[in-house]
Amino acid sequence: ALEALLEPLHAADIADLLEQIEMRDRRALLDLWSDALNGEVLSELDDNLREELLRTLPPEQLARAVRELESDDVVDLVEDLDQDRQEALLGALPAHERAAVEKALAYPDYSAGRLMQVEVVRAPQHWSVGEAIDFLRHGEGLPDQFYHVILVDPRMHPVGYVGLGRILSSGRQVRLQDLTEDSFRTFHVEDEEGAVAYAFNQYHLISAPVVDDEDRLVGVITIDDAMNVLGEELGEDMMRLGGVAGEAVMSDSVRETTRQRLPWLAVNLATAIIASGVIALFEETIGALVALAVLMPIVASMGGNAGTQSLTVAVRAIATRDLTTKNLWRVIRREAAVGLINGAVFAVVMGLVGLFWFGSPMLGTVIAVAMVINLVIAGLSGVLVPVVLDRLGADPALASGTFVTTVTDVVGFFAFLGLASVVLL
Amino acid sequence: ALEALLEPLHAADIADLLEQIEMRDRRALLDLWSDALNGEVLSELDDNLREELLRTLPPEQLARAVRELESDDVVDLVEDLDQDRQEALLGALPAHERAAVEKALAYPDYSAGRLMQVEVVRAPQHWSVGEAIDFLRHGEGLPDQFYHVILVDPRMHPVGYVGLGRILSSGRQVRLQDLTEDSFRTFHVEDEEGAVAYAFNQYHLISAPVVDDEDRLVGVITIDDAMNVLGEELGEDMMRLGGVAGEAVMSDSVRETTRQRLPWLAVNLATAIIASGVIALFEETIGALVALAVLMPIVASMGGNAGTQSLTVAVRAIATRDLTTKNLWRVIRREAAVGLINGAVFAVVMGLVGLFWFGSPMLGTVIAVAMVINLVIAGLSGVLVPVVLDRLGADPALASGTFVTTVTDVVGFFAFLGLASVVLL
Ligand SMILES: [Mg+2]
Ligand SMILES: [Mg+2]
Ligand SMILES: [Mg+2]
Ligand SMILES: [Mg+2]
Ligand SMILES: [Mg+2]
Ligand SMILES: [Mg+2]
Ligand SMILES: [Mg+2]
Ligand SMILES: [Mg+2]
Ligand SMILES: [Mg+2]
Ligand SMILES: [Mg+2]
Ligand SMILES: [Mg+2]
Ligand SMILES: [Mg+2]
Ligand SMILES: [Mg+2]
Repeated sequence: ALEALLEPLHAADIADLLEQIEMRDRRALLDLWSDALNGEVLSELDDNLREELLRTLPPEQLARAVRELESDDVVDLVEDLDQDRQEALLGALPAHERAAVEKALAYPDYSAGRLMQVEVVRAPQHWSVGEAIDFLRHGEGLPDQFYHVILVDPRMHPVGYVGLGRILSSGRQVRLQDLTEDSFRTFHVEDEEGAVAYAFNQYHLISAPVVDDEDRLVGVITIDDAMNVLGEELGEDMMRLGGVAGEAVMSDSVRETTRQRLPWLAVNLATAIIASGVIALFEETIGALVALAVLMPIVASMGGNAGTQSLTVAVRAIATRDLTTKNLWRVIRREAAVGLINGAVFAVVMGLVGLFWFGSPMLGTVIAVAMVINLVIAGLSGVLVPVVLDRLGADPALASGTFVTTVTDVVGFFAFLGLASVVLL
Repeated sequence: ALEALLEPLHAADIADLLEQIEMRDRRALLDLWSDALNGEVLSELDDNLREELLRTLPPEQLARAVRELESDDVVDLVEDLDQDRQEALLGALPAHERAAVEKALAYPDYSAGRLMQVEVVRAPQHWSVGEAIDFLRHGEGLPDQFYHVILVDPRMHPVGYVGLGRILSSGRQVRLQDLTEDSFRTFHVEDEEGAVAYAFNQYHLISAPVVDDEDRLVGVITIDDAMNVLGEELGEDMMRLGGVAGEAVMSDSVRETTRQRLPWLAVNLATAIIASGVIALFEETIGALVALAVLMPIVASMGGNAGTQSLTVAVRAIATRDLTTKNLWRVIRREAAVGLINGAVFAVVMGLVGLFWFGSPMLGTVIAVAMVINLVIAGLSGVLVPVVLDRLGADPALASGTFVTTVTDVVGFFAFLGLASVVLL
């Protein structure tokens, strides 16, 4: 009954279901329907949960599961396993598939070589449409899904590709070489997967050949896998901007979640203590005028928010390669201008708040000036910090937030309390 | 010379170049090479810049540009233009294409109907592979790129589809119906484009038919466009979490950028004033013990960061449909547990800071207790606020941040200063 209910679901939906239910329900479900964990479903599961479930699976079921997958999915499945489990799993594969997977595992993590499948459809460059059709019709072991026939020269260098639609809509005698598409571009096995995803999105690719150091065709990357990487990379940037390490998912345990968040909070605590140190410099000033303590978080908070706006846009643009040396100077000028305008607007508002709430025109002036200073600094540091981190080879999404808010806290408190101590006391 | 340099570039790269150079360089470039703005390049440009450039383009060049595009790209190009420019552009199209575009424009913004192209490849469901091949070989007006032949019944309802690879690798007498793929699913013209992108990613779709109210085939959506939407939606969530409205891009003007950011800063100012109001309740306490003013931003900042972590993960999971009623309760318990653990860790650290910096065990205790309270509240509100907003039909990415940090500011200041006023004075 349970099986009849779940069988028609797509593997991705079964995986989601397994991720979302409570652990004891998951165990019960898998006891009742042990075949639920086939290769497709395993491929779709969150990494941590998958590793946990792989450990409970009998070897023969695991073997069956991996045999149905294409090489790229097997690689994805085994790459995070420990040596022993990896051996056991690879042992279940036919020799040539095992060799393909082991070769892929020799490429760096997150590389094109890890992402590609070795199952490719290729043809000699001199073939005609008719020859290609006859080959495909009798070809054994074609991949499940393919969108192009890749043309290779005698030394196996890919020289172009032809979409299946063009093959089908051309006469048998037409040469494949006359049908090749402009969009053709190849990736190297060690290209970073983020760069692959960017290129698929930028150039509207559907599939692309992957070559080795000798420029020989060794595999193909398809858009569904590139789309998956694109989503992951963007999700990762979002998480990092939010101060969460790595790939946080809902099925993560309390332990794992704490591990993702505590380090970042520790960094934040350190920077918060630095900001407190700035306040401590002005203890006497605050003691003399407690209104300063009431108002100072406003200046810091506005700076932090403006800085976050600016850096969010910058981090995204660095990732989409829309912020480059060509427009950096223009963007810096823009951020300074926007900071100045917003600063001026909120300076007036806060000046009035200072005046009417605390009845002090000077207090209003002090907070207004501090606001302008902090919003301009926020805009500038929001661009400069991620750009500099990127140039230094660090991930701008990972560390910018702390830097920028530390800058705006320190500048905000210093400008406001410093001005106040000079002007008001 | 300029033309020879830029001609070999992909349209997407030419668009990026135009976006990134200074305005006067852009004018100079377009004066020298007026053909640069062909249909492909226009399609790739940022919306604001595109509108600006469309205004400068002579009508005959515009007409040439739109005629080379598929219907979905024409729709994307004209949908944001004002009535007059839209008319002028549509007038350049052949009657049947014009009708197709106008029909698409009648569907809601960001719907499947806007995203689809009307150029589809379909076949009667009873056809054989041979019939399909003969049709394709002699068919006029096939789309540039297609990946499936859609099978329709006599009333034009799509009943399945066959990948081109399967057609090519099967004998001429095989029935198309016996080759249809499991992944088949259709979208309705009014489906939201975000849901379309989700389904493409979740189910590894390459193309999918779109149907109208009568379930008749009216178009097809291809993965390159779905991938584009996926990237945009994720980018939008990222922007909104960062407090930036709409689709901020580097080519935006100072005016546009101010417009994207000022409203959000205004909301933040309002909430910061609320938090200040809480501090103002304890002016006397602070006057008696200025150390409180030095330490209070730490409690608020830690709460804000922990809340942002929690809500970033929740907003992402709501978007990927990984946070549902099935696991909400588990996630709430997890966030509370993580808040408690992190709170306890930082409570100990801050207790020691209070003790050694200010030499007061009681002050250390007060800040420690406030820290635990605020981090638990941060974890809980980080999940609950976006979930509730989502249930109410609001975008959780848009408003959660302000809500959550307001909660953590208010709770942080209130817990810390309130406890201090009771215990220390
Ligand atoms: Mg999933
Ligand atoms: Mg999932
Ligand atoms: Mg993996
Ligand atoms: Mg990967
Ligand atoms: Mg694949
Ligand atoms: Mg990244
Ligand atoms: Mg661009
Ligand atoms: Mg671009
Ligand atoms: Mg389009
Ligand atoms: Mg549009
Ligand atoms: Mg859109
Ligand atoms: Mg399209
Ligand atoms: Mg959204």
